Amino acid sequence: MTIETAIAELETLLGERFSRSKSDLDQHSHSETYFDPIKPDGVAFPETTQDVSEIIKVCSKHNCPVIAWGTGTSLEGHSLAVRGGVTLDLSLMNKVLEVNAEDMDVSVQPGLTRMALNDELRATGLFFPVDPGANASLGGMASTRASGTTTVRYGTMRDNVMGLEVVLADGRIIRTGTRARKSSAGYDLTGLFVGSEGTLGIITELTLKLHGQPPAIGAAVCAFKTVGDAVDTVIETIQMGVPMARIELLDAASVAAVNAQGALGLPEQPHLLVEFHGSESAVAEDAETLKEIANEHRSISFNWATKTEDRNKLWQVRHDAYHAITQSKPRSTALVTDVCVPISQLATAIEETQTDIENSPIEGPILGHVGDGNFHAILLVNPQNTAEIRVAKELSAKMAERSLRLGGTVTGEHGVGMGKLDLMQAEHGDAWSVMGLIKKAIDPKSIMNPGKLVNQN
Amino acid sequence: MTIETAIAELETLLGERFSRSKSDLDQHSHSETYFDPIKPDGVAFPETTQDVSEIIKVCSKHNCPVIAWGTGTSLEGHSLAVRGGVTLDLSLMNKVLEVNAEDMDVSVQPGLTRMALNDELRATGLFFPVDPGANASLGGMASTRASGTTTVRYGTMRDNVMGLEVVLADGRIIRTGTRARKSSAGYDLTGLFVGSEGTLGIITELTLKLHGQPPAIGAAVCAFKTVGDAVDTVIETIQMGVPMARIELLDAASVAAVNAQGALGLPEQPHLLVEFHGSESAVAEDAETLKEIANEHRSISFNWATKTEDRNKLWQVRHDAYHAITQSKPRSTALVTDVCVPISQLATAIEETQTDIENSPIEGPILGHVGDGNFHAILLVNPQNTAEIRVAKELSAKMAERSLRLGGTVTGEHGVGMGKLDLMQAEHGDAWSVMGLIKKAIDPKSIMNPGKLVNQN
Repeated sequence: MTIETAIAELETLLGERFSRSKSDLDQHSHSETYFDPIKPDGVAFPETTQDVSEIIKVCSKHNCPVIAWGTGTSLEGHSLAVRGGVTLDLSLMNKVLEVNAEDMDVSVQPGLTRMALNDELRATGLFFPVDPGANASLGGMASTRASGTTTVRYGTMRDNVMGLEVVLADGRIIRTGTRARKSSAGYDLTGLFVGSEGTLGIITELTLKLHGQPPAIGAAVCAFKTVGDAVDTVIETIQMGVPMARIELLDAASVAAVNAQGALGLPEQPHLLVEFHGSESAVAEDAETLKEIANEHRSISFNWATKTEDRNKLWQVRHDAYHAITQSKPRSTALVTDVCVPISQLATAIEETQTDIENSPIEGPILGHVGDGNFHAILLVNPQNTAEIRVAKELSAKMAERSLRLGGTVTGEHGVGMGKLDLMQAEHGDAWSVMGLIKKAIDPKSIMNPGKLVNQN
Repeated sequence: MTIETAIAELETLLGERFSRSKSDLDQHSHSETYFDPIKPDGVAFPETTQDVSEIIKVCSKHNCPVIAWGTGTSLEGHSLAVRGGVTLDLSLMNKVLEVNAEDMDVSVQPGLTRMALNDELRATGLFFPVDPGANASLGGMASTRASGTTTVRYGTMRDNVMGLEVVLADGRIIRTGTRARKSSAGYDLTGLFVGSEGTLGIITELTLKLHGQPPAIGAAVCAFKTVGDAVDTVIETIQMGVPMARIELLDAASVAAVNAQGALGLPEQPHLLVEFHGSESAVAEDAETLKEIANEHRSISFNWATKTEDRNKLWQVRHDAYHAITQSKPRSTALVTDVCVPISQLATAIEETQTDIENSPIEGPILGHVGDGNFHAILLVNPQNTAEIRVAKELSAKMAERSLRLGGTVTGEHGVGMGKLDLMQAEHGDAWSVMGLIKKAIDPKSIMNPGKLVNQN
């Protein structure tokens, strides 16, 4: 067995930093969603870029798959070893390497989590804004082109990664990008590796853009009679150019799930959760504009969270909503959809999705980063119930087809992994085969996270 | 001759839309800088994507190079037919295809110029912000990853292209991206083709982000004793988070050249030209902050341009500065450098460059988009004088080496073309070979703009 030969060499090479223990294999066999657990053949714990390079050289020699692992919080089975091989757990590579406060950038290792980075940055007056909810690793966030609640203001990982160090499938170490704010020096390799889900190489260092901590932050919670009213409020606010830092939708079912966790006691109606960053006066002015627009769309209530603790509680609730929803149905797991459409199509997309879910036998609360046109139905299924899983997959496929028809994408921020592989041809047509050409050119033996993102015969 | 065979087939295919006339070949043999003219073997004038596809199929069959031509305003010889072949003049593909005002995006053909687009958008309240100075075609701007004066606020072409239609080297037509504001659906092919300089395919359609026309615009002109003072003002303003729409430096020599054109009569000192976009009150507040910071850095004057005509005159002067500088020395052409460094290194980079130029026998006024850390020395040379050209190339190489040492790039916005090819290995190391792998995978016969951007043996 070629994988077995690689494993034996890696055991010699890494000693205690290589494991085949049941607990380590188990821990790296799970995803957060409905996929069955899949164990890798071994787990490596590199500490340096050189370690990663040497591991990959061994794997390359023996055609052994290599799968990167950050915090295991991805939602499309990205880090499952579907063809066996070695999982590269990057949690020991978790250092901040260099903070350049004057240039508002930072270099970090890939296993560092976004919250740990922001803890280290607190005294500098700077912060890293991309916030997918989970306390994901920054390497993982780059690999899935993560975004989340703050994207409407600060962009996605694509917009906030300036440069990378990457170990290629042959063990070579390359650097992409520079610390300059822009460049026209050839193909945008940084942009290519961001979102490549470990299929082209392993990210071993990231240079990230930072942003100034805003002088003032304000948050608003606003209830509506219908999702349509809430979405129309979002569209109008965006078109007015009101600079929101976050604007999140929770439908009534999501609010009910959140309430069941005893948190905020919100009325069980569709809600917008909004945050503004800026000067005191700008924040107040923007909130007033939002309130007027919401009123025009028959808002039921508009509460302004001025205290930091109230605001933090609010966003904690939003972050915990996914778990609150999955816990709202006993023994359930979730198939999380992730479409993103042009904002003019958002109300149509959400309303038609709600109707489909209402007409189905399963539940699916909806929440989303509606300022980007991105929303998720959390389709609740019993993982043992194949009929439920089939229904959820049909609902998901219908949402994807609708999103493409409306000019959108089948995944706004979760990525392809295994879960969205079947939708790539529909979204990209012949362009998907170009992705395959790139994959084959950079990873000719297909050892880097095989079975994900591209079509590999 | 394989090229001759292709030419004969194209003459039959295209009839009057294919030319081998001396005037057409001459017109497509020039660049705006110091490169010797190089004539293509023929010029095709496609009107549709299908035309482009059929032309490329013929060229592919006969291994005939294909070079895209927008307005011919690129600065690194991108559109010169260094290996002969067919120049694809895209000027007839110049339509606005679809304005989606609600979603703030637009679909256009590649031959449309940025000014023509903004003329068409005027009534919508929206505009396309990327402004490289020249009235370049949007396809050309995407191909070189252009940026310019407004990038500090609105980003580069990389940030403003949402999707593309591209004809590949085998004539296949693909689409990249969607009209959704973000996506995690696989490799970022849009980002890969933006900046690929026609070496991977021909862009036949672009979907672009639009922005709301600002309610108020203010402009300031500020003179300083030294370039260092001006740059320190920029750095501090950026770090304070003052949102500038443009912040441009002209050194004293640039101002002298501009004055010689009889335009503004500015004191012959280093100047910052700044523009603010926002509400009336925000613009006034931001300008006041800039004025205070400039004062702390010994500014000599601070003039506020409130009238539209004064502001337009100011920016016309900035746009014409390149020509004013080249006209300041009889019979001269320019070797235009284009480094971009982290902003903390900007003063060092500019001051050391000025010293080098002062110690050389040639002149080289400096101007730049200093908010991005990007500046240009316009090195004036007599195109017949090989000694001057050699000196200019040595100065340029020294600037490039310094930029890399300071964490920057050898080209902030002009691209690679022929002119920066020799610097790619130094900037990218092994990552340059990855660009070569991608080129070979997507254009295996190397017919798409050969001799540019990548290493082609």
